[in-house]
Amino acid sequence: MTPSKTTELWRLTASEALSRIHADELSVQGYAESLLQRVKARDEQVKAWAYLDESAIIEQARALDAVPKKKRGPLHGLPIAVKDVIYTKDMPTQYNSSLYEGSFPKVDAASVRILRHAGALIFGRPYLFSHGLSVNSQPNPGKTTTTQFAAIHIGPKTSNPHDPLCTPGGSSTGSGAAVADFQAPIALGTQTGGSIIRPSSFNGIYGFKPTWDAVSREGQKVYALIFDTLGWYARCIDDLVLLADVFSVHDDEEIEFNGVKGARFAICKTVVWPFAGPGTHGALSQAATLLRAHGATVEEIDLPSEFDHIPEWHRVVLHSEGRTAFLPEYRVGRDQIDQVLINHVENADGFTHKTHLEAFDGISALRPKIDDIAGRYAAIITPSVPDEAPAGLESTGSHIFCSMWTALHTPVLNVPGFKGAHDMPIGLSLVAPRYHDRHLLKVGKAVGEIFEVEGGWQSRM
Amino acid sequence: MTPSKTTELWRLTASEALSRIHADELSVQGYAESLLQRVKARDEQVKAWAYLDESAIIEQARALDAVPKKKRGPLHGLPIAVKDVIYTKDMPTQYNSSLYEGSFPKVDAASVRILRHAGALIFGRPYLFSHGLSVNSQPNPGKTTTTQFAAIHIGPKTSNPHDPLCTPGGSSTGSGAAVADFQAPIALGTQTGGSIIRPSSFNGIYGFKPTWDAVSREGQKVYALIFDTLGWYARCIDDLVLLADVFSVHDDEEIEFNGVKGARFAICKTVVWPFAGPGTHGALSQAATLLRAHGATVEEIDLPSEFDHIPEWHRVVLHSEGRTAFLPEYRVGRDQIDQVLINHVENADGFTHKTHLEAFDGISALRPKIDDIAGRYAAIITPSVPDEAPAGLESTGSHIFCSMWTALHTPVLNVPGFKGAHDMPIGLSLVAPRYHDRHLLKVGKAVGEIFEVEGGWQSRM
Repeated sequence: MTPSKTTELWRLTASEALSRIHADELSVQGYAESLLQRVKARDEQVKAWAYLDESAIIEQARALDAVPKKKRGPLHGLPIAVKDVIYTKDMPTQYNSSLYEGSFPKVDAASVRILRHAGALIFGRPYLFSHGLSVNSQPNPGKTTTTQFAAIHIGPKTSNPHDPLCTPGGSSTGSGAAVADFQAPIALGTQTGGSIIRPSSFNGIYGFKPTWDAVSREGQKVYALIFDTLGWYARCIDDLVLLADVFSVHDDEEIEFNGVKGARFAICKTVVWPFAGPGTHGALSQAATLLRAHGATVEEIDLPSEFDHIPEWHRVVLHSEGRTAFLPEYRVGRDQIDQVLINHVENADGFTHKTHLEAFDGISALRPKIDDIAGRYAAIITPSVPDEAPAGLESTGSHIFCSMWTALHTPVLNVPGFKGAHDMPIGLSLVAPRYHDRHLLKVGKAVGEIFEVEGGWQSRM
Repeated sequence: MTPSKTTELWRLTASEALSRIHADELSVQGYAESLLQRVKARDEQVKAWAYLDESAIIEQARALDAVPKKKRGPLHGLPIAVKDVIYTKDMPTQYNSSLYEGSFPKVDAASVRILRHAGALIFGRPYLFSHGLSVNSQPNPGKTTTTQFAAIHIGPKTSNPHDPLCTPGGSSTGSGAAVADFQAPIALGTQTGGSIIRPSSFNGIYGFKPTWDAVSREGQKVYALIFDTLGWYARCIDDLVLLADVFSVHDDEEIEFNGVKGARFAICKTVVWPFAGPGTHGALSQAATLLRAHGATVEEIDLPSEFDHIPEWHRVVLHSEGRTAFLPEYRVGRDQIDQVLINHVENADGFTHKTHLEAFDGISALRPKIDDIAGRYAAIITPSVPDEAPAGLESTGSHIFCSMWTALHTPVLNVPGFKGAHDMPIGLSLVAPRYHDRHLLKVGKAVGEIFEVEGGWQSRM
């Protein structure tokens, strides 16, 4: 335990905080207050929150402290930040859209219901449309920022904790930034293209996209049903394992993995490798070198050429399913939604259903094939992003390296550790076959211990 | 127009009512009042409603009557019944589950949002858990009954309008019964196995399950994401076309179809044909005879043997996805949910993820193949149900003939017209390739005109 974690409780990981709360060394209120102090100190710069009510958080924390020990859930007292596209019964859900200003579905999404039942403290602060530090008088905790409907690449005002002039990525913008900036130990995000993995790479944290539908997506905005996946951010693998436990994410059987030494990894640059910048070039080759130095076999693989279609197929399905998903908003408030969404509904691409189904069925046919390929390795290692976070907050960056894995339904874990030309973090994606989520977390822990220590990037926070 | 439609406005189809409202021959209030009278007269027997507030409906109807003509939507004043698994901002959503008693998400599902924007009047009456005719004092309209979470086969207390001792089917129980009983012209249902098609067959009405994800399912209970589909009930095809228009359901191009004469139909008994009783045997052979008599070519086809897996694959995927979907309810209130759902979450079948994915991928691979086969015909004609509605309200019947088409994502239309041994209605399913929804409705109109007149079943209502 670093000394700073005694005085700066907000530095605790979720596992550390839970362990202290369990041992009566820390109250839920004390921990929440420390996180709120961190939010106050940093919010003017980072702006991670779409909604937060300090007094409601403290009230909930006190209530949790009063729960008898034997009635406490596995996440008792753990603050979790929720992306503002996921329903929470005690907060508005506004999708960064003026169409939903003040919209307040008094119901929890399936994920939030499970987390609350496990004792989690749903956490946030008021950002709304005009940003200010005033404490909201309504009894509502908080939500993290998103791009509009988690569907576009124009960022909210949130900035990267490691450089206020850089984007923290999107669309799970505030969730990634809040965890990286120690304002919350855990956050929920959603991914339809690269909305979990990209921010985790840009922010230097772990991001996990489980197998499609391994975790219920009920109660969150639909973009493309066949891609949308709920996932989590944390600063260590143990914290992601806590979530996997609570969401009952289990593999069929344990696959042998006894550490990096003797394990076999695949490096897969994919067909979109020309989009990789020098930072990602460096990270991927450094990863191979490090794993080999630790006794692993690392081989570079090319996927069969049929996989080359996937980036375009992802785009076709995304836009086609978006045509269905955004029809209500288009009808009710066409002038209040982004042009990207208008284009989906109006089918500006002119995609036919025939084209859509060729893409939909083409991706479907490749899922068992990628399982087969990935199953030969401890993990496939592949880029998360083209490079470190680009300068500017307007664009949240590209999902080009993420979208194929989202389409293929595989679990993906971003492992941080590397850096780009401006000393900003770069992570790499580890991929396993569908429903090998626990295996992937186990491999990610071993790999992460190497990348974090020897990859070259160190957080200055 | 039958004389009864002058005095008994509740007999109007949606298209007829809209046309009269548009021509200022009928007020929204007058029409709503007539339907409410019908509900009052029949509710004690049929019990189709989970929730309804007469005064709120009249209030909404008056507000609609006050809308200037040029600001009216295409469904202006049309009452639509909503199954109680779909969010409505002005009514509770309770899933026939005590776990959600009084749960009131103040948000509309995507479908309801589109319908309201088009001018529809969302409609219902209070059934709740103890049934009574008292007018609820809260400003809320109504919802139709469902089996628990639209996921089990144990019926609510709703009875078949044509025989109070028979089930109206499920899980979209109240929606089917309300439309058949002239208590609403249109109703929304959902189908994961056979929850739209089965009740429409049992109730002698049209039921339409569009192509998967052609209509947004946002804001409704998730059971199996890859199967769940929103659909509609009506008493004529023109009314279903109204809904297809409002939901922007369009085919790529118009396929030539100039009526039954000269058209080519396939009769497909499917691998589950041994489950068909005498009523369905009779209906299918009568359908072939009638279509031939009207000049069509009708050939019996057997699907390739790989399709024989689908009923079991549907079951595997249903139970596996149900494991994810019902985890929140299991955690929060295990003793308040049906054993079927407990079994899903506890994986009582012992399905591995490997088994699940073989089923998931196996079905995926057959989708383009069924499109290819169905595309050779005006429609595939196949059973909707094993036979007429079984006696008793406890079981809502079997989805055995519906589940494969749900899995395959094709549009399915139940066309009524035939009858069983007890003079109860039997319908048949018409199937077309994915995204040939409009084509299917067009074919269904021509086929329905024959089946309804010459099939032998006549409603006595």
